[in-house]
Amino acid sequence: MRPESPRDAETVAEAGEFGLIRRVTNGRRQPAWTLLGPGDDAAVVAAPDGRVVATTDVLVAGVHFRLDWSSPEHVGRKAAAANLADIAAMGAVPTALLVGFACPPDTPTSLIDGVSDGLWREAARAGAGVVGGDMVSCGQLVISVTALGDMRGLAPVTRSGAAPGDVLAVCGRLGWAAAGLAVLGRGFRSPVAIVGAHQAPEPPYLAGPQAAEAGATAMLDVSDGLLADVGHIAEASGVAIDIRTDLLPMHQRLIDVGAALGASPRHWMLTGGEDHAFAATFPEPADVPEEWTTIGTVRRGSGVTVDGRVYQETSGWEHWR
Amino acid sequence: MRPESPRDAETVAEAGEFGLIRRVTNGRRQPAWTLLGPGDDAAVVAAPDGRVVATTDVLVAGVHFRLDWSSPEHVGRKAAAANLADIAAMGAVPTALLVGFACPPDTPTSLIDGVSDGLWREAARAGAGVVGGDMVSCGQLVISVTALGDMRGLAPVTRSGAAPGDVLAVCGRLGWAAAGLAVLGRGFRSPVAIVGAHQAPEPPYLAGPQAAEAGATAMLDVSDGLLADVGHIAEASGVAIDIRTDLLPMHQRLIDVGAALGASPRHWMLTGGEDHAFAATFPEPADVPEEWTTIGTVRRGSGVTVDGRVYQETSGWEHWR
Repeated sequence: MRPESPRDAETVAEAGEFGLIRRVTNGRRQPAWTLLGPGDDAAVVAAPDGRVVATTDVLVAGVHFRLDWSSPEHVGRKAAAANLADIAAMGAVPTALLVGFACPPDTPTSLIDGVSDGLWREAARAGAGVVGGDMVSCGQLVISVTALGDMRGLAPVTRSGAAPGDVLAVCGRLGWAAAGLAVLGRGFRSPVAIVGAHQAPEPPYLAGPQAAEAGATAMLDVSDGLLADVGHIAEASGVAIDIRTDLLPMHQRLIDVGAALGASPRHWMLTGGEDHAFAATFPEPADVPEEWTTIGTVRRGSGVTVDGRVYQETSGWEHWR
Repeated sequence: MRPESPRDAETVAEAGEFGLIRRVTNGRRQPAWTLLGPGDDAAVVAAPDGRVVATTDVLVAGVHFRLDWSSPEHVGRKAAAANLADIAAMGAVPTALLVGFACPPDTPTSLIDGVSDGLWREAARAGAGVVGGDMVSCGQLVISVTALGDMRGLAPVTRSGAAPGDVLAVCGRLGWAAAGLAVLGRGFRSPVAIVGAHQAPEPPYLAGPQAAEAGATAMLDVSDGLLADVGHIAEASGVAIDIRTDLLPMHQRLIDVGAALGASPRHWMLTGGEDHAFAATFPEPADVPEEWTTIGTVRRGSGVTVDGRVYQETSGWEHWR
């Protein structure tokens, strides 16, 4: 999908590479993490812990977002959130983003401005700066984002530390982005809160470091769907995990949208990705922070069950399959 | 440009996302910098300096490389080198790469293997690991690489520190990639050393930290062409820089290829990008490390001259212009 280019709008080809870089960097306020921002061969970011946490994700127009369903700012927010959530899911505090941007030469500069605004807005929500990037010509609109973070002296919380006897808990929205996608797919634009959750997730970034401090044994962000992602913890940790649907924090808005569309809000919560909620295991129920909701248990074995049974529906999202 | 997909070759769609990730990570040896490698939400990389240097570049098939001119391994090496050189040009030691990979579903997995081999090979040359990545579906082949590095207690060498009285020096090949491109453009495949320089640069990574230790006042890697990049130092530092062509380290191979094609090797050296040599300014001629070649002087004023005059040819490469 190529972004529309009204005849009277300035294009990236007209602005030129250096003009574009000025456009997306001028007037932005960097956080204290940013020791040297954009404009040189590389940026310099504080890493007081002596270790840096790093992750990268690529979003492609028509695959990961649709510009007729999401504004450029939504796209920027979403691209930032997907990466910032990965940093927080290690228990780290996000410090910086780097952004690779590929687009057709006739892309209007207003699209770049919008994506840039979204990236900066979401980075600021997480306390991070946008410290570097690259802009190149490409037939398709592609945004690659790398996020960095600081562990603040804690051990990284991986997927492999869950042990029998642990409890499973979540923090953040589940199923909202999937419900929003379903709404848009039927041609509707509201409810705005649900549609907005698909356009740009709002991960509770602080929940990641909070869980690490509380002693979480395993953690990840829910990007492929709760069942699929909890399955990653089960597989990496060599344990079985059971989710209790009566404990899932189901919001009335999801119930209403499910009723309106004849769809199951529980299925959205179990299989919908892209909300970037956090799922973690803790040794004891008392370890689970107040903002989190306990939804299951860890025991010996393998695989993920729902209310003690294998969930029969398709349970995730894998590229190319 | 879409890579060719022979009918009997396995495609990325058949391998699936997780199969591909296993393919590019299995059996790779991580350096000591890598504290937690691929497979979790994010990687963890040592940053003993307490600051991390970070840069990102995006390469697009048909724009930055041609798969009929370069093997997949060349493409991987080139993508890694462009970023590793940016890290070294700050005076830092490269520690890690993260790789975003977007390609059509019918891309053969052998292409992924080749690019992966090239990325790992060049990362190993620089002492870095490949610690994370993302693979997504896209109409066009796009590779985005982020590199990280460690300053080892030194101050980052930016573009803005050159002062009147400094000398300008370079380390690494100049004009080789441009000569190789000219050779390929005429339909030839040799000389191999020249063509190879276009297919995959070989930046002298150690020269970056070496220059920083020797007290370089400004530095960058030559990616846009010597004149254009030295112009970036002149502009950022608010100085004038003169390059003396009799001091340029011109290799006999460049002279031979120039004679064969009726082209100017001097012009290739002054304007050819993508070799990722390093250019730096030093306070005194005696500060210039032995491996470097002094080629010019810094004085009050602005702009870049060649033998005291404005160079008349087109002097660089800017996207979309």
